[in-house]
Amino acid sequence: MIRVAVDAMGGDNAPGEIIKGALSAARERNDIRVVLVGREQVIRDEIRRQGGDESLVEIVHAEEVIETGEHPVNALRKKKDSSIVVGMNLLKNGEADAFCSAGSSGAVLAGGMLIVGRIKGVERPPLAPLIPTEKGISLLIDCGANVDAKASNLVQFARMGSIYMKNVIGVENPRVGLVNIGVEEEKGNALAKETYPLLKACKDINFVGNIEAREIPHGAADVIVTEAFTGNVILKLYEGLGSTLIHMIKKGLMSTLISKIGALMAKPALKKSMKAFDVTEYGGAPLLGCKGLVVKTHGSAKAVEVHNTILQCITFTEQRINEKIQEALNPAENAEKSAESAAKA
Amino acid sequence: MIRVAVDAMGGDNAPGEIIKGALSAARERNDIRVVLVGREQVIRDEIRRQGGDESLVEIVHAEEVIETGEHPVNALRKKKDSSIVVGMNLLKNGEADAFCSAGSSGAVLAGGMLIVGRIKGVERPPLAPLIPTEKGISLLIDCGANVDAKASNLVQFARMGSIYMKNVIGVENPRVGLVNIGVEEEKGNALAKETYPLLKACKDINFVGNIEAREIPHGAADVIVTEAFTGNVILKLYEGLGSTLIHMIKKGLMSTLISKIGALMAKPALKKSMKAFDVTEYGGAPLLGCKGLVVKTHGSAKAVEVHNTILQCITFTEQRINEKIQEALNPAENAEKSAESAAKA
Repeated sequence: MIRVAVDAMGGDNAPGEIIKGALSAARERNDIRVVLVGREQVIRDEIRRQGGDESLVEIVHAEEVIETGEHPVNALRKKKDSSIVVGMNLLKNGEADAFCSAGSSGAVLAGGMLIVGRIKGVERPPLAPLIPTEKGISLLIDCGANVDAKASNLVQFARMGSIYMKNVIGVENPRVGLVNIGVEEEKGNALAKETYPLLKACKDINFVGNIEAREIPHGAADVIVTEAFTGNVILKLYEGLGSTLIHMIKKGLMSTLISKIGALMAKPALKKSMKAFDVTEYGGAPLLGCKGLVVKTHGSAKAVEVHNTILQCITFTEQRINEKIQEALNPAENAEKSAESAAKA
Repeated sequence: MIRVAVDAMGGDNAPGEIIKGALSAARERNDIRVVLVGREQVIRDEIRRQGGDESLVEIVHAEEVIETGEHPVNALRKKKDSSIVVGMNLLKNGEADAFCSAGSSGAVLAGGMLIVGRIKGVERPPLAPLIPTEKGISLLIDCGANVDAKASNLVQFARMGSIYMKNVIGVENPRVGLVNIGVEEEKGNALAKETYPLLKACKDINFVGNIEAREIPHGAADVIVTEAFTGNVILKLYEGLGSTLIHMIKKGLMSTLISKIGALMAKPALKKSMKAFDVTEYGGAPLLGCKGLVVKTHGSAKAVEVHNTILQCITFTEQRINEKIQEALNPAENAEKSAESAAKA
């Protein structure tokens, strides 16, 4: 039984959509236990309002809510009884295998570091959302709050991202690309130039070289490695440009009577195309490298995204991703253990 | 009479589309003189093939061509008789007011610095393309090859970009935004944090604060300030995501018979929307801050883009942009000159 703690109070559509998604995930799978964290009475009332079955979930009470505008670290310190702090403590104490929140990004990232803690050997836990491409999906790593990364951080991102794509998404031998302003090895800023040869030397990852941002939507790599500032720009431009283009297409389609009729006929097919490019279809972004799975879903997450996020947590836990990350990042220790057990045998 | 030198040999569609665009610009305006730089016989043959009027343009012979794959600085040194070096020398010697090329970006950027030279006070000439937004166009500054910029460089980009948008594009009091991962002043990487207060303190620019990448396509600022690595990522993702989304929409529209009929009816309206978001509609990107106007057009530029780029050069020259940049970046010297002329009077 896998236990997924869900922040019932975080996000623009909390608690309604969060609870709706949690109930639907709990109904679909009987190998999980969903734990809703937040104001107990609010949660109970909402489940009742939705006509849901309270016995499908557990509720853990948390009185406070961390707001998006609050300073993350200060908020974590002051609001010990907030849904984020209480949920993360469940994870820390082994009472949950995963924790998802659509609440304050800063607080979720800081909480992952400060409350849940890093796996041994992890320098920085990266936030790694899945983004849609022409060919399917890619993992964009890092989009977190830890900007000004070092080359060694990026190498770890490549390793952790490869493990995720292979074991959670099922991509064999995932292609790792380094975001750069040209494909040649000598191109780029100081960080990219330093990172390239390090990635090239890694025998355990399938490094395909530099990729230009133009190639990301074409699906040029399965794991897109970059430091958090650029990653954040890529993710947000993806969202912004997608919504702007769709807005402009709709405006164009509504501009004449004939185009309006045409739009009506083309709508179902268009909708399908657009859905494939909707970032919210792919669940939340895991904060990799913590002692326990922390997943950040969009602030605007609706029930479908919450549902998908919870199901992702199952695969993550079943595939023992954290153990695999620890082994990959501590190869010497791992070799020692193998030698020890070989000696014992 | 404004003289615009055009690299007839650079770009994927050279010399055909370059010459076509040059002839059409020369036909439209009689206050410009277009100088085609490249292999004379090739140019003459192409003009004849197009049925064009040779007397509309001047031809300056250059035997060599710098290829995209060549090392920019080495190529400039070795190929003294290339269209880029010859064209830039025309600019340097005052025989042309502007030089446009769809050829090697690296060579154009390096040539601007090394052959044409910087205006006094300019630390780094930024490459500043216009990008489409929901509201019109914005200037993205810098997208060049000079990565790892300093805060003082970014402040200069903000000044130069404001002068360009006001005087060439006609935007009154252009809004300047700093690309960042959050809107709050304390957000971002070391460069953004250092740049914010400097921009805030500038009385001669209309700083609207940090902008997140999501807001760029919505037209949140007229001048989008960032260092070249991030700028390059933004520009290329704009291009890649635009073409991917259009490809997926077309695929969707062609998926059923009904959607195909609908698509036929909606096509003219859709095409108009898409055209507004086509980066090639807006001419080339000026390399600001050089002693003479250098403009880089897309490698894939067709006649329309070449035509638009040449016309932009007229406004740039007429509006004395370089003089305005020099005055803005050397305020002390400027005040001295004013004082001198006042004393004389």
